[in-house]
Amino acid sequence: MPSYTAPVRDTRYVLEQVLGIDRYSNLPGFENATPDMIEAILTEGGRFAAEVLHPLNRSGDEEGCTRHEDGSVTTPEGFKEAYSQFVEAGWTTLSAPEQYGGQGLPSVLATAVTEYLLSANQAFEMYNGLTQGAIASILVKGSEEQKNTYLPNMVSGRWTGTMNLTEPHCGTDLGLLKTKAEPQADGTYRITGTKIFISAGEHDLAENIIHLVLAKIAGAPDNVKGISLFIVPKFLVNADGSIGERNGVSCGSIEEKMGIHGNSTCLLNYDGATGYLIGEAEKGLAAMFIMMNAARLGVGLQGLAQGEIAYQNGVAYARERRQGRALMPDARDPDAKADPIIVHPDVRRMLMEAKAFNEGARALVLWGALQVDIGRKAQTEEEREAANDLLGLLTPVIKGYMTDKGFEAAVNMQQVYGGHGYIREWGMEQFVRDARIAQIYEGTNGVQALDLVGRKLGANSGRAIQEFFRIVAEEVGAAKANEKLAGIAGALERASNDLQTASMWLMQNALANANNAGAASYPYMTMLGTTALGLMWLRMAKASAEALAEGTEDPAFHENKLITARFFAEKVMPETNALRRKIEAGSESLMALPAEAF
Amino acid sequence: MPSYTAPVRDTRYVLEQVLGIDRYSNLPGFENATPDMIEAILTEGGRFAAEVLHPLNRSGDEEGCTRHEDGSVTTPEGFKEAYSQFVEAGWTTLSAPEQYGGQGLPSVLATAVTEYLLSANQAFEMYNGLTQGAIASILVKGSEEQKNTYLPNMVSGRWTGTMNLTEPHCGTDLGLLKTKAEPQADGTYRITGTKIFISAGEHDLAENIIHLVLAKIAGAPDNVKGISLFIVPKFLVNADGSIGERNGVSCGSIEEKMGIHGNSTCLLNYDGATGYLIGEAEKGLAAMFIMMNAARLGVGLQGLAQGEIAYQNGVAYARERRQGRALMPDARDPDAKADPIIVHPDVRRMLMEAKAFNEGARALVLWGALQVDIGRKAQTEEEREAANDLLGLLTPVIKGYMTDKGFEAAVNMQQVYGGHGYIREWGMEQFVRDARIAQIYEGTNGVQALDLVGRKLGANSGRAIQEFFRIVAEEVGAAKANEKLAGIAGALERASNDLQTASMWLMQNALANANNAGAASYPYMTMLGTTALGLMWLRMAKASAEALAEGTEDPAFHENKLITARFFAEKVMPETNALRRKIEAGSESLMALPAEAF
Repeated sequence: MPSYTAPVRDTRYVLEQVLGIDRYSNLPGFENATPDMIEAILTEGGRFAAEVLHPLNRSGDEEGCTRHEDGSVTTPEGFKEAYSQFVEAGWTTLSAPEQYGGQGLPSVLATAVTEYLLSANQAFEMYNGLTQGAIASILVKGSEEQKNTYLPNMVSGRWTGTMNLTEPHCGTDLGLLKTKAEPQADGTYRITGTKIFISAGEHDLAENIIHLVLAKIAGAPDNVKGISLFIVPKFLVNADGSIGERNGVSCGSIEEKMGIHGNSTCLLNYDGATGYLIGEAEKGLAAMFIMMNAARLGVGLQGLAQGEIAYQNGVAYARERRQGRALMPDARDPDAKADPIIVHPDVRRMLMEAKAFNEGARALVLWGALQVDIGRKAQTEEEREAANDLLGLLTPVIKGYMTDKGFEAAVNMQQVYGGHGYIREWGMEQFVRDARIAQIYEGTNGVQALDLVGRKLGANSGRAIQEFFRIVAEEVGAAKANEKLAGIAGALERASNDLQTASMWLMQNALANANNAGAASYPYMTMLGTTALGLMWLRMAKASAEALAEGTEDPAFHENKLITARFFAEKVMPETNALRRKIEAGSESLMALPAEAF
Repeated sequence: MPSYTAPVRDTRYVLEQVLGIDRYSNLPGFENATPDMIEAILTEGGRFAAEVLHPLNRSGDEEGCTRHEDGSVTTPEGFKEAYSQFVEAGWTTLSAPEQYGGQGLPSVLATAVTEYLLSANQAFEMYNGLTQGAIASILVKGSEEQKNTYLPNMVSGRWTGTMNLTEPHCGTDLGLLKTKAEPQADGTYRITGTKIFISAGEHDLAENIIHLVLAKIAGAPDNVKGISLFIVPKFLVNADGSIGERNGVSCGSIEEKMGIHGNSTCLLNYDGATGYLIGEAEKGLAAMFIMMNAARLGVGLQGLAQGEIAYQNGVAYARERRQGRALMPDARDPDAKADPIIVHPDVRRMLMEAKAFNEGARALVLWGALQVDIGRKAQTEEEREAANDLLGLLTPVIKGYMTDKGFEAAVNMQQVYGGHGYIREWGMEQFVRDARIAQIYEGTNGVQALDLVGRKLGANSGRAIQEFFRIVAEEVGAAKANEKLAGIAGALERASNDLQTASMWLMQNALANANNAGAASYPYMTMLGTTALGLMWLRMAKASAEALAEGTEDPAFHENKLITARFFAEKVMPETNALRRKIEAGSESLMALPAEAF
């Protein structure tokens, strides 16, 4: 059976020693994020994840959700009780505004806890994760009345939320969507259409489900510019806030999927359901994107979360399983016939790759989440703009690169188990199946790459990527003279040079032929991900070198970081060179075949 | 629902135009492999795979195998009937010697047909695949009596075979195995122990199952040098060849796995079962390796097979699914609101990678299979030795690299389907789950890499790899002046240089520190795989350029090959450079952490 322990020590290291969260105590909400508070929240969140959610992970996978004839859906045994405890303990309220019953804590802290929840039970945490995204959209775009009607119960977790974009014939290309909204005399709309792949679309955990639904108002342009966003509650809400009559939305079926079986993925039929416009008509996509961007960070986090739990169990097995002899005689256990497989370099390759990814990715996603806080709360427009630029640039990378590498980590940790990894009862294959979805939903990773290269790179004349290069150059410059940091700094400089060369190539070649940008997008995203993780490793190496120089109670922890930074520099970062060469080869051989020749 | 069409045209191209099978008509068995015969066998084999086996692939996955209280196992509905037809049509007999009822056809032809069977239904074909491996061992190591007793019914498919290596506490490290063989007065042995992960270990398809079992004879050394190989039939065979009494082997349970559900993976209990020694006592591992080497080629073929069927269905979806607009205005369909996703460069990236892998891998595995024939049948010892050298070198690469890339292709083809790829009914996720096992069994891919670097590279003072480099240099030299081939030839030369540099680095650094070899093994295997596929693409480019120059009825087919060769050169082969740099970084950062620091 797999086990899980929240990596609280490592999260605290990132928050306190790498990101220096104390430097932001002037931001609203951060004043409460004292070291003691951070430790208490992480420790308790980690305990809840490990003790309450994790024991339901495999049983939830085995049992899945059940749809009944009346359209109701039952979650796996134990989920309802766990969700009650989850709500009771206030885990849904961390970063929501105090005005609506939230704790007003920094996003970066909520993100840290969410990693643990996702590691322990991704299918379970998604019920909450979708709600948090819906809260974000209503907070920004909802009317005062809408906020007051929905937010308190969503923040408390009594009600959950969903996002409804996909239809049978369209996912990525929302311009094609067919769900209709007919205006009514009372200012509401009647929503009619079919939505598919709606995570947490129907279930038995909460009293009400607040669906956010994209639809076209009759007469609107039949393309992406004609899309509006609606609140469609499962149960209408009475004027006094109590739950009213059932709305015309129902679950037509639930999907049989490769993984995340504990989360109900629904086909939802809207039959003239009452909907309430959020924000302006025909500006629905922008409103949904608030939710989507939050969701994309959350999905990136899933990559890390699955990578982390898979890694923990990979390590446990590699320490225990004895098979073969260490290549170096002095590493052999004289009292046994075989050594633990962690002595074998190729087993270590897989473990070290996963470790270097997880720890680097944890720093990256928390750095990204910190930009969410700064972008919302910093005092100057300049600071907010810089944070939002960086967040915009990093979001597709966190979603795309981190879910690719998290899946790879899960696959490699399954590999550590040999044949046992393929057997369900060991639990490793579930991590692979669960991790796989994160590369697909909330915009496939190919769509993330296009968002990066097609939108984010060029926005504001490339302001965001230039700032990224400036940060890298500054930190590389400061580190090069330090012998302990020179290796990782040099590798980061080479990667950054590859990335700059590729950026230049794109500027020169994408205008003439847009396919060059499309062809470059995926390797570019991977390069930027590798470089961003390199930057995180430089920061961690720096923080740990300083801790060692100053004297620390835990030198082994910091030596460990320096070794892992070196591993990442030597064994992962060389990949950017090959990726650059692929980009420079352009799109000709990619596009030359006619469709029928495949 | 996924569909499947056997790529007969492409197989014939490889056999006839790339490998020039007609040049081997002096080898026994090849005289029958005329172009007409080849076409008939491939066409009929492909038809059987597509029409009989493929329709059972998803239902077999859904239903799985069932073990009953008496230890008997039922295969999924339809398997038994399909197996009868399979036997009836003689598909088990292709390459077996005529003496035992086989058709005596070349191995390379049987391999070509097996690809189709594996694409259509890997779980089904494994019942036959294991039998073919057992036949190979008995042919080489069995006594005349054993051959006469078992082979005719195994060749006809009336009986199937298995290989029993793994035990609960040992897989890779067979020195640890505990199954005991007690010599009896009549020359037989009583076999006692527990074997796990026995594919096709118990089922309802055949009248008898011939288990090949590794065990230690009482008093033998308690390490790999003390292992012997035994035939343990499920039913003893009477002197007249009829089926006798039930032997003391039974299925204790079947495993719940990630995939290949249609194949029964058994725990087998041997309770004093009657066994017959094959070959010499304490030489069991060598005897089993005959089976293993055949099986490793077969497992490599599984990588290609899953990559191929996933690709076919990825292409079909990419041609039909409309989503978004082509980046280049002239590629847009003026009559529709969206274009088929095959117009998008990043979708093509995934399709072209899968296509370039599949076609290159088909050439590589058939080239390898041809070495099996030459190694057995060539007239001169020199020719046989050269073929066996090459086969030894290529076997871990075919197994390791081809299953990694086949899995990657299956994952990417699932990605082409977006959200639908994650839903079971579309069938794409099954290819991913089925492809995954091939990286694990018959020696994990990490073990393949160690076999390559630790055994195959250095054997006979590096004769095999030097011959490989010689072949590459010769073919690159001959191609460089040809404008149509210069691109792929140049890329191959660079990859080969990277590989030679890495080989040199290994020679200089592995002796002083064996961990350097262990650390280099996996990237080295991937480099050699990439280079070997590059060689295949050079050969295909050459064959197609010649066909075009000479005038061909099907110029589009050959232009297609030249474009795909260019794609492989530009978009895949640059990876060897990064791999070389990883190798040159050595093992220090990999091995530095103590086990408890993970």
